Amino acid sequence: MRARPWIEAFAPATVSNLGPGFDCLGLALRARGDTVRARRRDEPGVALLRVVGDGGALPCDERNTAAVAVAALLAAHAPGEGVELELDKGLPLGSGLGSSGASAAAAVVAVDAVLELGLPAAALVQAARAGEAAACGADHADNVAPAITGGIVLLPSLDPLRLVSLPVPPSLWLAVYTPGYSLPTAKARAALPTAVPLSRVVQQASRLGLLVHALHCGELALLGEAITDDIVEPARAPLIPGYLEAKAACCEAGAIACSISGAGPTTFAIASDRGRAEALLAILDEAFAAAGVAGDGFVDQVGGGARVTTGLLH
Amino acid sequence: MRARPWIEAFAPATVSNLGPGFDCLGLALRARGDTVRARRRDEPGVALLRVVGDGGALPCDERNTAAVAVAALLAAHAPGEGVELELDKGLPLGSGLGSSGASAAAAVVAVDAVLELGLPAAALVQAARAGEAAACGADHADNVAPAITGGIVLLPSLDPLRLVSLPVPPSLWLAVYTPGYSLPTAKARAALPTAVPLSRVVQQASRLGLLVHALHCGELALLGEAITDDIVEPARAPLIPGYLEAKAACCEAGAIACSISGAGPTTFAIASDRGRAEALLAILDEAFAAAGVAGDGFVDQVGGGARVTTGLLH
Repeated sequence: MRARPWIEAFAPATVSNLGPGFDCLGLALRARGDTVRARRRDEPGVALLRVVGDGGALPCDERNTAAVAVAALLAAHAPGEGVELELDKGLPLGSGLGSSGASAAAAVVAVDAVLELGLPAAALVQAARAGEAAACGADHADNVAPAITGGIVLLPSLDPLRLVSLPVPPSLWLAVYTPGYSLPTAKARAALPTAVPLSRVVQQASRLGLLVHALHCGELALLGEAITDDIVEPARAPLIPGYLEAKAACCEAGAIACSISGAGPTTFAIASDRGRAEALLAILDEAFAAAGVAGDGFVDQVGGGARVTTGLLH
Repeated sequence: MRARPWIEAFAPATVSNLGPGFDCLGLALRARGDTVRARRRDEPGVALLRVVGDGGALPCDERNTAAVAVAALLAAHAPGEGVELELDKGLPLGSGLGSSGASAAAAVVAVDAVLELGLPAAALVQAARAGEAAACGADHADNVAPAITGGIVLLPSLDPLRLVSLPVPPSLWLAVYTPGYSLPTAKARAALPTAVPLSRVVQQASRLGLLVHALHCGELALLGEAITDDIVEPARAPLIPGYLEAKAACCEAGAIACSISGAGPTTFAIASDRGRAEALLAILDEAFAAAGVAGDGFVDQVGGGARVTTGLLH
C-alpha cells in the first residue's frame, strides 16, 4: 500500500488582548509559529504520532490541543474520516504568544487541506477553540482567530462567532520578549477579577473604541493612547517578575505602547519602525535580565494567518 | 447707557450611549435643541434672567445647568467678567435627549462669543460638564461633547478630556420618540449595576469596538449588530413602560437597531432612509400609546454642534 501523503501547515504566534481588547482582540505575528503535518489514515478519528520542540512537556495523545481541535473539526465537518498528525512546536509553552492556539490553528488548517474540506475561516476557528478549551479551560478565540485569519482581528461575538478584520497600519512594529519562565494560562486567568466597577467598564470599552478608531486612521500615537488597561494588566503584572520595570523603561524610551501579550509573561512594545523596535527589544532584555528572568525575543510585524506550507510531499 | 448686545446660541438634542457606548459615546441631532441668549453685564459672575419653555420646572437662578456651566467657564477662562442669560428650552426635561447638556452647551457657546474668548471645543465641554454635574450628579460628557462639537463623538478619557470625532454614515436616520412622562437621570443612574461580570465587560468593549468599526466602514448593518447592550439596557428598561414592546415592534419591522437614548425614556430606532425612519416612528408611537404613555417624536439625522445663531441683536 502506497504511503498516504503528508500536508504541512504553519500557524503564527499571536499577541492577544493588546491592552483593552481582553478576550476579544488579537493579532498574528510573522516570524514564529507552530507547524503541523497531517495525513489521512484508515481508522476514523485523530492520532497524534509525534510532538517535537516541546521538551517533552506536552501530551502526545488525544489530550493535545492539536488533536482536540482536529477531533472537533472531524466531528462537525467530516465524521468517519481519520487523520494522523505530527506537531513541531516553534513556540514556547505558557508564554502568552498563543502557543496552544497556534498548534490548534495549524492542525485544523492542515486537516482541512488533507481532507479537501475547504472550510471557511469561522469553521476552522470554531474547531480550534475546542483545542483552547482543552489547553486552558476557556474557549477564548482571540489567539486562534488571528492565527487562522492573520492580521488584527476583533471578536464582537463568540456565539455566534463573529470575526472582524481590522486595518493594519503598515508602520506598526512590535518588540516581543518572552521572559525565561512559564506562566500557565489557567493561573493567569485565575488572577483576574470576577467583577468590574461600572466606571472601569466604560473606560475599557471606550479605549477599545479608540483602538479600533486608531487602526482605521493608521495613527500609531492614538493606538498607543488606546493600549491602556486598568482591569487585566494590574491583576497579572504581579505574576510577571520584571514586567513593570520593563514597561516603565520602554515607555521612558518612547515606546508607543507596552503591555502583556495574552496571559503573559511575554511582553510586547510597539514602535513605528524596525530600528526603534530593536531598541525596545534590547530594553526589554535588559529589564527582564535584571529581574533574573532573562529570556528571548524578536522584532516583528503583523502577518498572515495559518497556511499550507508544503505541497504533497511524497 | 447703551444696552449691551445679546448673542444667541443654539445647541442640539443629543442621543448618548447608543447601546454599548454608555457614558462615552453620543451623537448630535439636527432638528431640536435649546437656545441661550447672553450679554455682558458690569457685575462679575452670571445671572440667569429668564427661562421659557420649561413649564416653570427649572430653577431660574444660579442652580440652573446653564448658569452653572457659565460660572465654570468664567472661573476657568474669564475671571472678573459678568454675563446675563436667557434660556429657551426647546427640549423636554428628563427625557434622555440631553436636555440639560443642550442648555449648558448653548450657554457656554453664547458666552464664549459674547466675551470673544475663542475657546477650543474641549474647554467648552469641560465647562458644560459642570452643568451636567449639577443637573444629574455625574459630570458625564457624552451629551455635552456632541452638543458642542456635533457629529458622533467618542470619549476615551475624561481626565484629561479626550474628544474623538467618528465618521457619520450619510444614510444614517433616526426615529426619536419621547414617551409622555419624565425619568430623572439620577433615578435612571441609580438603577445601574455597580459592578459587572468580567465576561460582560469583554462583550461590551468588543461591541463598542464593532460600533466604531461600523462607522468607519459606513456599514449600517454592522452598526445595528453593535448596538446591543446587556449591561445598561436591562437595568433601565423596567423603568420605561412600553419600551420592550416598542423595541420588539421596531426590530420586527426591520429597524437596524433600537435602544434607549441616554438615561431614557426617549427611545431611538435606526433606519437607512427617511421613509423607514418615519415608519419606525409610527411604530414607536403606537407601542408607547398602547402602554399608556403616548408622547412625541421626530425623525432626524446626525447634525452639527452648538453655534451662534444670530449676530448682535440689540
